[in-house]
Amino acid sequence: MAWNTEETRRRLKEAAVVEFAAAGLAGTRMERIAERAGINKERLYRYFGDKHQLFATVLADEMARIAAALPAGTLMADDPGEYAGRCYDYHVEHPHLLRLLLWEALDGGRGPVSDEPARTEHYRRKVADAYPDRPAGRDPLTPERVMFIIMAMAAWWEAVPQVARMMTGVAEVTPQEHARRRSAVVEAARRLTA
Amino acid sequence: MAWNTEETRRRLKEAAVVEFAAAGLAGTRMERIAERAGINKERLYRYFGDKHQLFATVLADEMARIAAALPAGTLMADDPGEYAGRCYDYHVEHPHLLRLLLWEALDGGRGPVSDEPARTEHYRRKVADAYPDRPAGRDPLTPERVMFIIMAMAAWWEAVPQVARMMTGVAEVTPQEHARRRSAVVEAARRLTA
Repeated sequence: MAWNTEETRRRLKEAAVVEFAAAGLAGTRMERIAERAGINKERLYRYFGDKHQLFATVLADEMARIAAALPAGTLMADDPGEYAGRCYDYHVEHPHLLRLLLWEALDGGRGPVSDEPARTEHYRRKVADAYPDRPAGRDPLTPERVMFIIMAMAAWWEAVPQVARMMTGVAEVTPQEHARRRSAVVEAARRLTA
Repeated sequence: MAWNTEETRRRLKEAAVVEFAAAGLAGTRMERIAERAGINKERLYRYFGDKHQLFATVLADEMARIAAALPAGTLMADDPGEYAGRCYDYHVEHPHLLRLLLWEALDGGRGPVSDEPARTEHYRRKVADAYPDRPAGRDPLTPERVMFIIMAMAAWWEAVPQVARMMTGVAEVTPQEHARRRSAVVEAARRLTA
């Protein structure tokens, strides 16, 4: 019974992330999520609250997942280029997180977002792990801004795939093209942090 | 009468860019655009065709506008950092273009998009202007990828403003904060192209 509950929650969250990534918070109906999971809507509400709360839960899960997959502390100490390359790979292999963030931005990213304090702490910890000794001086490239710019370089390809295709003139993103883009990101992050 | 037609077209396009930027192609109704412009819906269809054609027209206008405002050739030859800074400013001051591109990406950026050949040519020309002498060698940072990464660095702040806020820990984007972000982008682009 406990296992059954866990399994039901897992299936509902899996369905939710697919639906939210496809259509955003505003465009998703709770019915569709329940249908996709094959579980009735009442249980969906009972387990996760309303649509906003479910979106927040799904996003928190995705952020925990990327934090576990990409330990900024060890990777950045080793080689910021390789850290950026791993970020690039992550977004290619896990497109949901980026789509959730973009939908959230378009829906109202200038105002407060769900779980903002916890998520701010997530990013603060990531920056602190990457830069345990905060550099002195007045470089405009503070640790926070370097980490944000690395995220930009790594994520932009999947954020606007149509622009990447048009700008590079490469119509089909083969594994070889992914490798070339990744090398560019790696090299760019090395220069940024040199 | 000719002036009147031009004025009507201008008002319709202004209303269209506001509505499309707010809600994307899928979320926008032609009625709303006509209402916002204070012009009847039949004229909107007569002048611009259907919703997809209108979206394409509006996006083409926005792309012509950024190309005119940011001549990549002279700016990149002068100082790639300042070019990136001007791109940053542009997206802060003209949020519509970026929102149109993000909606388009979320709606189906992996498939062909409207006016793809003309837009590919727009980007090709921008890259060619910025790099009139194509560098030899096998640097993964080709001109196309450098230009794409500069766009990423410059645009990401406005693309995901909630992430920028959480990552930097700065809740309110004052003019001073914009200046600090801009300096970071300028410095990052200089290092990238050094």
